[in-house]
Amino acid sequence: MENIIVESQIYFDNASATPVDRRVLEDMLPYFSISFGNPSSLHDFGDKGHEALDNAREQVASLIGAESEEIYFTSCGTESNNLALWGIARSLKDKGDHIISSSIEHQSIINPLKEMKKEGWEITHVGVDNDGFVDPDDIKKAIKKSTVLITLMHANNEVGTIQKIGETSKIARENGVVFHCDGVATAGVIPVDVNKLGVDLYTLSSQQMYGPKGAAALYLKKGTRIKPILLGGIQEKGRRAGTENIPALVGFGRACELANVDMGKNTKNIIYNRDKLIDGIFKNIKDVKLNGHRTKRIPGSAHMSFEYIEGESILLMLNMQGIFAASGSSCASQALKSSYVLTEMGITSTLAQGSISFSLGKYNTKEEVERTLEVLPPIVDRLRQISPIYKSE
Amino acid sequence: MENIIVESQIYFDNASATPVDRRVLEDMLPYFSISFGNPSSLHDFGDKGHEALDNAREQVASLIGAESEEIYFTSCGTESNNLALWGIARSLKDKGDHIISSSIEHQSIINPLKEMKKEGWEITHVGVDNDGFVDPDDIKKAIKKSTVLITLMHANNEVGTIQKIGETSKIARENGVVFHCDGVATAGVIPVDVNKLGVDLYTLSSQQMYGPKGAAALYLKKGTRIKPILLGGIQEKGRRAGTENIPALVGFGRACELANVDMGKNTKNIIYNRDKLIDGIFKNIKDVKLNGHRTKRIPGSAHMSFEYIEGESILLMLNMQGIFAASGSSCASQALKSSYVLTEMGITSTLAQGSISFSLGKYNTKEEVERTLEVLPPIVDRLRQISPIYKSE
Repeated sequence: MENIIVESQIYFDNASATPVDRRVLEDMLPYFSISFGNPSSLHDFGDKGHEALDNAREQVASLIGAESEEIYFTSCGTESNNLALWGIARSLKDKGDHIISSSIEHQSIINPLKEMKKEGWEITHVGVDNDGFVDPDDIKKAIKKSTVLITLMHANNEVGTIQKIGETSKIARENGVVFHCDGVATAGVIPVDVNKLGVDLYTLSSQQMYGPKGAAALYLKKGTRIKPILLGGIQEKGRRAGTENIPALVGFGRACELANVDMGKNTKNIIYNRDKLIDGIFKNIKDVKLNGHRTKRIPGSAHMSFEYIEGESILLMLNMQGIFAASGSSCASQALKSSYVLTEMGITSTLAQGSISFSLGKYNTKEEVERTLEVLPPIVDRLRQISPIYKSE
Repeated sequence: MENIIVESQIYFDNASATPVDRRVLEDMLPYFSISFGNPSSLHDFGDKGHEALDNAREQVASLIGAESEEIYFTSCGTESNNLALWGIARSLKDKGDHIISSSIEHQSIINPLKEMKKEGWEITHVGVDNDGFVDPDDIKKAIKKSTVLITLMHANNEVGTIQKIGETSKIARENGVVFHCDGVATAGVIPVDVNKLGVDLYTLSSQQMYGPKGAAALYLKKGTRIKPILLGGIQEKGRRAGTENIPALVGFGRACELANVDMGKNTKNIIYNRDKLIDGIFKNIKDVKLNGHRTKRIPGSAHMSFEYIEGESILLMLNMQGIFAASGSSCASQALKSSYVLTEMGITSTLAQGSISFSLGKYNTKEEVERTLEVLPPIVDRLRQISPIYKSE
């Protein structure tokens, strides 16, 4: 597969952003300056935009086993998550005021829930075990008469652990509670069938699957009532006002189609490279821990804690060698806070601060992993030598 | 200037969407698949995204005489308007519960205000005169102790009338009321200086100025407090969560820069062509009315009512000749409702239904106007011949 990163650079931060696949970009190009019409317009230019939109909607729906009319486009995963939370809560506020979530959700779930709490909603954050798993039984126990919504991420964006969505949705269904699943880290990455998962809402984002930024969707099961957060025109059947970003949505659609077709092949390569990286690190570096479940994780995720040193220092030194990884959650990296996800998993703050996340993607190669395995051990060694807390045996 | 529309096609729907300027698109391209990093990432890829974002913010600020740090990026004009309304209202709800607006605002103002009314806010919609002008005195009279926000569009997106923003902002200031101005139809089209206008918030959108869809901004005067509507990461200083759409924002920035440089030349051409079109229509077709003020309008706008016939029919027949214009407001065109803007201006529903909007842009030529002036009169004539309400003299 064509590697579109500059040759000497190794990009292991695919959970944060992926490059747009060239085939996706080619599909998008005509919609900027040629077929640029507003889909609401009553002329041929508008019609072209409209057709493109319909096609993209089918491609997105097809990736997750949904119907076209169950897909609502938004501008990003954060918007889809906010729409799911505020939209369901406001539409069901006469039914109850209790929402259940986990303690390791993405900030675009955690922070709206914080705000909702201030507005009088009761929020229960179910904890996780050392691997980052939510126990569906804990969700079950948290349900009350007033519970109207459960929101749980499909896989964690930092450590990659894949939750038991099917079991959780069964509990939601049995209790008549709407179930939203944040699939930003999973859609296009692992097989997703919203009907088999049994979810009522599902968030998908384009930029994590080699599609462009600025495009995302919310799957809304037929018959699920929701209030919009952006009001204006009647786009997206009144659920999301604003002129549709056709080029980005065309790209999103194509990215979904490519993910559908290439997933098997990509996953095999990515897992091979990831395991080579994890095994190589364990073999060559002492006092290392892999965070998240060893196998029930998204293919590209290798989140490692290196004892006695700072993850940020490793990152900077890797960066100087042209290797790009991440620390903590991509949305807050520049905040340099210790990750709440790791804390919730019971990882000590010292160990948490020594962690970095390698997220591999379809453009990464075996050779890149080999180069990283050459470069990383001496970096860790050097940092440990100057670390005041390092005690070599 | 390069005409990027197919040669035989004449695009007069620039108020609804403009083609992306080729120079803008070229600037955007590297940010899809090469410099695609997430600006929050702590490595070179992230840095490139961050630099691009800073640069775009400066370009946007510069177009409207603002400081960089007063520009907050969003995904579209609708989102900026929603953020302005909900954000200011929620941040000032302890101060008062009254909002003043006009009766001809864009739907992305009208519809949030409707929802706010349901939530207990008191909304006053000030009317307009036959040209579409809001009288600043009417705003003044509407102000109460409980008024916290005035929102008024800079120019109407349908008829193009430019409001007296300076006078209105003075009234707002004198009364200690926050003033938001929706500049989607004006930013990049006519000179805008937020300080001279005296506004506290100003909405700008990329797609109306030859920039890409999916990019917009809200100018927020330093010191103005606002609550976000999308919560999550700390992007845009916590005012708008969600990974920044770098390629689109780079394009938006460049579009602002080009608008700044080329505005004089473009405006001259556009006004020449618009007046040629308006004068030609008056000369060749009877029983026609120009809606909106004759001169105090945005350069490209020619909104005409043709008595005795349906605007939609004219549109369809123009479309068959490769000429693309609009009916009513671009966001609701497919809804086929009679425009509330025209109703509010006192235009009878029969006349309103006979109206179409030509919005000219920088790529339109004299020859296109001439061709339209050949094609339009026989269309109107034919439609009138079959109209049951047409009475020829």
